[in-house]
Amino acid sequence: MRVIKKEKKFNEARLIEEIKQLSLATGKFNKSLIINSIGDDCAIFKDKNHILVSSDNITENVHFKLDSYSFLEIGEKSLLVNISDIAAMGGIPRLFTLSLSIPEYVSENEIRQTISGIIKTARKYKVSLVGGNISKSSEFSISVTIIGDYKHDNVVRRFGSKIGDKIFVSGELGNSWMAYYLQSNKKYIYENNPNIRSSDKKLIENFIAKFKLPKPRVKLGRELSAKKLANSLTDISDGLSKDIFNVLDLNHGGKIELDEVPFNKHLKYIANILKIDDFIDNAISFGEDYELLWTAGADKEGEILELSKNTGTKIKKIGYIADKFTGARFFKDGRRYHPKNFTFKHL
Amino acid sequence: MRVIKKEKKFNEARLIEEIKQLSLATGKFNKSLIINSIGDDCAIFKDKNHILVSSDNITENVHFKLDSYSFLEIGEKSLLVNISDIAAMGGIPRLFTLSLSIPEYVSENEIRQTISGIIKTARKYKVSLVGGNISKSSEFSISVTIIGDYKHDNVVRRFGSKIGDKIFVSGELGNSWMAYYLQSNKKYIYENNPNIRSSDKKLIENFIAKFKLPKPRVKLGRELSAKKLANSLTDISDGLSKDIFNVLDLNHGGKIELDEVPFNKHLKYIANILKIDDFIDNAISFGEDYELLWTAGADKEGEILELSKNTGTKIKKIGYIADKFTGARFFKDGRRYHPKNFTFKHL
Repeated sequence: MRVIKKEKKFNEARLIEEIKQLSLATGKFNKSLIINSIGDDCAIFKDKNHILVSSDNITENVHFKLDSYSFLEIGEKSLLVNISDIAAMGGIPRLFTLSLSIPEYVSENEIRQTISGIIKTARKYKVSLVGGNISKSSEFSISVTIIGDYKHDNVVRRFGSKIGDKIFVSGELGNSWMAYYLQSNKKYIYENNPNIRSSDKKLIENFIAKFKLPKPRVKLGRELSAKKLANSLTDISDGLSKDIFNVLDLNHGGKIELDEVPFNKHLKYIANILKIDDFIDNAISFGEDYELLWTAGADKEGEILELSKNTGTKIKKIGYIADKFTGARFFKDGRRYHPKNFTFKHL
Repeated sequence: MRVIKKEKKFNEARLIEEIKQLSLATGKFNKSLIINSIGDDCAIFKDKNHILVSSDNITENVHFKLDSYSFLEIGEKSLLVNISDIAAMGGIPRLFTLSLSIPEYVSENEIRQTISGIIKTARKYKVSLVGGNISKSSEFSISVTIIGDYKHDNVVRRFGSKIGDKIFVSGELGNSWMAYYLQSNKKYIYENNPNIRSSDKKLIENFIAKFKLPKPRVKLGRELSAKKLANSLTDISDGLSKDIFNVLDLNHGGKIELDEVPFNKHLKYIANILKIDDFIDNAISFGEDYELLWTAGADKEGEILELSKNTGTKIKKIGYIADKFTGARFFKDGRRYHPKNFTFKHL
């Protein structure tokens, strides 16, 4: 009879030391705020502003497949989705902790690539890694807790929409769905479309590369909150058809014009050549776009569309808040439309 | 060919709503500090003090086995080990986020029991649940990020020990190891000791019940920091033989008298009847006790031992910081002793 803790294939102490070294480069971003980082029982954070906290995890076979994402990309994504939560409050992401759960079939070098992706993203968004842990598991999973802050009053919560508010969305919707779909089914698509043009293949490859990972809208979120250009704000993680409810008061309704919802021209082109007729349903219900969705008074519309230039982000008005009904109502070609939930089950 | 997100056996929306309702009861503990809790993209926390952050996770088959722990206990433990990290800095635990990774074989009711254990612990230690997420996985795992605070100057880090400092430990060591060992091997122990007395069986059952879960030393940690009674401080999660290095400066050595290390009398009695000769090695290297380990100047000894009464916690001086060597040296019966790492492989 044996009572032993499971042996770890990777050298935990060495990896933690490596992470600690890598985190030094991210510590400079919030030098005046971080008193204590990795290497003690807790990190210490000094802040006069209000503090935002959010946790999210990504798990193999639920949020990603190892044959569709590189370890670098998995690392990037684990932090990007958390940064988006800070963006969705109009805050500034500051620091994060990391829980890595690592199965036996992931090598130490692959863990290192994952950490590279995390640190790459931390550098890009100037957030500091201040703590965490590594644990053995049967499935690859990364859990991040992100902490951000905002100056008093500059924050936008989900439920603040007013009747008559216009509804806005940043970027384009459905790109994450299409990139995921193409990546996951590439072999099948090419086999079943033997006459596909090489220029279209290239377009598909470029599309995947460009939209595989989300781009959290931190700058836009901050501008919206600082300039008071949003009454309610969230990010689109579960798809417009679900996340719209996060900016609707229980007593209000939201009217969405699907003809106004921004779709990438290449998404439409690819949907056309691959004969994906129901691309709108998938694009608005798959989620993972991490674009911002918000409402603001009609008098703010000019200033909001102006923001598009300053932040280099597309902004589109897609509907308004009504008092005649509750819930969300979608319209297309002038008629009521009932979106189906992520319907894409087969080619 | 199918592109579908895995179906969840549990109703995520309902569980999140239940957790949200349960978290209301924990929100009152930090009412003036929490502006926004579960239900938005982030929680909002307002604090003038310095902030402590730490993440830890517990994973099935690594940190617990489902046949040795009830779901209630797993929930309790996931939060207790994180609270201990705040105690190990002398801080006050305030709030936490929760990432639940749930495999198919865990029922919604079992998840509910796990959450009950978490909320029970949150109520006991007055910490507030402010966010988190639930995800499908192939293995049961709970990742907690805890946030605490402390008044300026009242914090004790790991590396602050001075030459001549005495080394102190709270409570008793090895109880978690013995409880784990007894619980995991109960059937085998009873089968192989057919003449075991029923009073001893009862003693074993009581021991397991009493020491299965750690008791984070929050009050003691706060007293040590507020009264400046520790130069360096940590909690014993990996065992004294490893954690001692966390309170040793690289230039100092630590001398530990194993005869002074506190062991529970029932632990010694059970080790004796079960003929576990190497109980000291296991007791100081298995870890999971979450007792505090700290160093302080010799002039503080009286005040420290006095704390024992105020906090209802045993405190024992077990050695001192020396300048003649580096690293940790253990002594037993007046002679140098080299502890073996968690040696308990068979009865």
